[in-house]
Amino acid sequence: MLNDGDLVLLWSPRKGDSYLLRLKSGAFQGTHMGTIPHDDIAQASFGGMVQTHKGQPFYVLRPTSGEFMRRIRRQTQIIYPKDAGLLLLYLDIFPGARVLECGTGSGSLTTMLAHFVGDEGHVYSYDRREEFSVLARENCDRWGVGHRVTFRIGEVTDGFGERDVDALVLDLPSPWEALSAAYEALAPGSRLAVLVPTTNQLERLLDGLHEGNFVDVQVLETFLRTYKTNARRIRPEDTMIGHTGYLVIATAVRSRGLDDGQEGEKDRS
Amino acid sequence: MLNDGDLVLLWSPRKGDSYLLRLKSGAFQGTHMGTIPHDDIAQASFGGMVQTHKGQPFYVLRPTSGEFMRRIRRQTQIIYPKDAGLLLLYLDIFPGARVLECGTGSGSLTTMLAHFVGDEGHVYSYDRREEFSVLARENCDRWGVGHRVTFRIGEVTDGFGERDVDALVLDLPSPWEALSAAYEALAPGSRLAVLVPTTNQLERLLDGLHEGNFVDVQVLETFLRTYKTNARRIRPEDTMIGHTGYLVIATAVRSRGLDDGQEGEKDRS
Amino acid sequence: MLNDGDLVLLWSPRKGDSYLLRLKSGAFQGTHMGTIPHDDIAQASFGGMVQTHKGQPFYVLRPTSGEFMRRIRRQTQIIYPKDAGLLLLYLDIFPGARVLECGTGSGSLTTMLAHFVGDEGHVYSYDRREEFSVLARENCDRWGVGHRVTFRIGEVTDGFGERDVDALVLDLPSPWEALSAAYEALAPGSRLAVLVPTTNQLERLLDGLHEGNFVDVQVLETFLRTYKTNARRIRPEDTMIGHTGYLVIATAVRSRGLDDGQEGEKDRS
Amino acid sequence: MLNDGDLVLLWSPRKGDSYLLRLKSGAFQGTHMGTIPHDDIAQASFGGMVQTHKGQPFYVLRPTSGEFMRRIRRQTQIIYPKDAGLLLLYLDIFPGARVLECGTGSGSLTTMLAHFVGDEGHVYSYDRREEFSVLARENCDRWGVGHRVTFRIGEVTDGFGERDVDALVLDLPSPWEALSAAYEALAPGSRLAVLVPTTNQLERLLDGLHEGNFVDVQVLETFLRTYKTNARRIRPEDTMIGHTGYLVIATAVRSRGLDDGQEGEKDRS
Repeated sequence: MLNDGDLVLLWSPRKGDSYLLRLKSGAFQGTHMGTIPHDDIAQASFGGMVQTHKGQPFYVLRPTSGEFMRRIRRQTQIIYPKDAGLLLLYLDIFPGARVLECGTGSGSLTTMLAHFVGDEGHVYSYDRREEFSVLARENCDRWGVGHRVTFRIGEVTDGFGERDVDALVLDLPSPWEALSAAYEALAPGSRLAVLVPTTNQLERLLDGLHEGNFVDVQVLETFLRTYKTNARRIRPEDTMIGHTGYLVIATAVRSRGLDDGQEGEKDRS
Repeated sequence: MLNDGDLVLLWSPRKGDSYLLRLKSGAFQGTHMGTIPHDDIAQASFGGMVQTHKGQPFYVLRPTSGEFMRRIRRQTQIIYPKDAGLLLLYLDIFPGARVLECGTGSGSLTTMLAHFVGDEGHVYSYDRREEFSVLARENCDRWGVGHRVTFRIGEVTDGFGERDVDALVLDLPSPWEALSAAYEALAPGSRLAVLVPTTNQLERLLDGLHEGNFVDVQVLETFLRTYKTNARRIRPEDTMIGHTGYLVIATAVRSRGLDDGQEGEKDRS
Repeated sequence: MLNDGDLVLLWSPRKGDSYLLRLKSGAFQGTHMGTIPHDDIAQASFGGMVQTHKGQPFYVLRPTSGEFMRRIRRQTQIIYPKDAGLLLLYLDIFPGARVLECGTGSGSLTTMLAHFVGDEGHVYSYDRREEFSVLARENCDRWGVGHRVTFRIGEVTDGFGERDVDALVLDLPSPWEALSAAYEALAPGSRLAVLVPTTNQLERLLDGLHEGNFVDVQVLETFLRTYKTNARRIRPEDTMIGHTGYLVIATAVRSRGLDDGQEGEKDRS
Repeated sequence: MLNDGDLVLLWSPRKGDSYLLRLKSGAFQGTHMGTIPHDDIAQASFGGMVQTHKGQPFYVLRPTSGEFMRRIRRQTQIIYPKDAGLLLLYLDIFPGARVLECGTGSGSLTTMLAHFVGDEGHVYSYDRREEFSVLARENCDRWGVGHRVTFRIGEVTDGFGERDVDALVLDLPSPWEALSAAYEALAPGSRLAVLVPTTNQLERLLDGLHEGNFVDVQVLETFLRTYKTNARRIRPEDTMIGHTGYLVIATAVRSRGLDDGQEGEKDRS
């Protein structure tokens, strides 16, 4: 038996389409194949089946963070699970971590960071546009992690108020302008992640990182291919995402040595 | 100032190579470019620089979970960050989750799951070969998360002792033989992830999932491309990993309805 | 000055859209941005510019074989340039070659093979459905290479009438049923190419090849990624083709030796 | 029965390795598994089997242009079949075409172009370094197409001697410096192809193309994935080529109109 306020994913075996909703006693969920009373969903509980008023079946599934991320209410380009998952491991996000994000946007990555730092951790999310903070807060609250996030409005040129954060993410049009502020806020030896969509931004960013106190620079690109699931006709889907962005990882050090000036020329094997 | 037992990543600006080590007062780390006293590393602390006895610089960086995963001591094929990251989001791993894994192997995924479930969560990891549990335990302990894992030795045909786990991962040669046991252990409405390297295994697995009480089946394949980081000559590395495996996600439901028999034929859009 | 019957590609600098047409004096070409007299196009000649009656510019370009292939009139799934180009090199198509194709379909590959074998070569194209031969012949004629192709209607179980062909392509739902016929028609030491969309077909095909007198089996998959061309914002297009099919290449030999039975187990490095 | 001077591919069913050789009566071919008399190979003919003096079997296969290209004797980075095949279709190479190439290099693409233009076509290949022309000529002769190629030594700033060529390929470190010369040599409405390995070169090249009389600019990137061929364990090979280069296609027009200045901003759908 589920309760008011629980988030559920309704999934149709007929069409494979699905709906993400928060339960409210007495409410109804509309679908392409008829409506379903929320009370039926609460009664069916996770793993159960409900039917629309037209008799069409839907399963009541637990929503996943990846599914939530893909469906987030957005006013901006969002970050996708294929990139977010890699970022979690390369930045070393952990339960209890203090993470700073600049470029709140619609809050897809904010939600994900807040999900994984847990109640002992915290996310500080900056954006210059207040309307994005409002939307992102709604999205974080919807996923139940809003209490782990402090939203701040401001320009990157003003710097960040936090110090010694465990990880820092920049998702801005001109991330090279935020490198000094990022360096100030990061704990020495910890990671910065930057997301940029174009190779032109990548070039300016690499210049900024090589000029600053950052080492071990890595540039990553991910692809996700999905397959049709008919066991008799296994094949990839006809189309796939061709590009989301370049993920750049770098590590802040106390100071760059005099004799490692060629470091930018060297590639990680 | 770092302490005995701290795990650090030494990174060379000259060659881009690196060493992962646990500090022990009085010990020395050998490198291709000379040795470094652990005491110097502790003194330099994270973000600091040390030199080998030949004067070669190394930076003291915080190790990341992704870096640890790639370097894990192994006797088996391991799971890589590109797949593990996606799995975290599609399975909905969260701080506090109870996760069951079958196919401990060298413990690369065990470590990652234990990392992200935090001290409130727990991982139950099964393998039929005791020597793998021993190695995996060492790897988990090395990353400081061994206390969050219970290792069990046994055959999948004996079933799992846990019930209502939040997520379940199968990394076995014949995962279709473990679907009943997986179903018994999973909380209804929760996700199963399976990793298989060949399309032949994929076919048998899809048959098993479509015959069992699993819905919303997804088959995913990820690619990771790394780039050279010289800002004047930006280009992908010459070679990349061509294949690790197929990642299959499915959701356990209480029972499959009579009228959704065509579900296997339908693909998630 | 172009002539009646010349094939031209009209390309719009405004929208990037384009039209492939055969010139006919007195005719008009409709576009989304107005109509253009064919006589204006003939007058402008290749490399010239014409305008619609609304003043919108279009350039008169030479059509390429790749462009023609992508735009072919079709009733079936077609073969794309990314696969066709590789096939030309792996099958060793050359001017003067005699090539056999089974599975004419809409004639996209037929056109391409006829294009590259030249007037000294010849293509024999089989299909069991006469309506496809009719369409494919129209497409070949449109590209001006119809005289290099003999279309035949028949079942693969009846075998092929040709012998000692230089290369052979199978594009059928059950290509394993055509392997004996293909072997009979191929010159010893020459290549067979097979296109299959699913891994299930791939498995049956590999079994058939390993059981027959075929060696040096290769399975290939190609991806094509296109980029946006704004020099200030270089980035891949958002979406790409995720799958067309698996391209399998094998070589016919006079007889398989007694002691190379393990050949199927070995992979080309 | 094969003849002196015939090119053959010896392929081992045991190891999958192979040797490309030109037959010479009385000569011997060394392999990792023993030597084979050329006379045995001539006797076995295409599709036949020969044995080394240690009794190891090899099949006598017809070499393909793709295989030859991959194995070419090289002093430079070469162009691979995955890119060359696409280039044939996007440039519209055809039997009888006159093609100009600048950047002969080791002659891998020269060979391929000469292969496909046939005896009625011709390739003009420029390089500033005479030693490359010598090597490329040997490679073309080895494949039997040297008589279709004119090698020229010179700087791109001197321009090309040909006019109205059907297609033109630039494979140079600074291709933007050759755009004027390329434009002069190309038939109006015909295609230019440029290969560049870095995004920095891509940016400068796109600027040059958008400033010159070129339209319909396309940037392409190809990937080739090979699979293991054991029918019971179908899976991609562990590693693949991650990058060869960006393939840029553009079309020369008589003059760019005054009102299409935004053309560079628009992307081909």
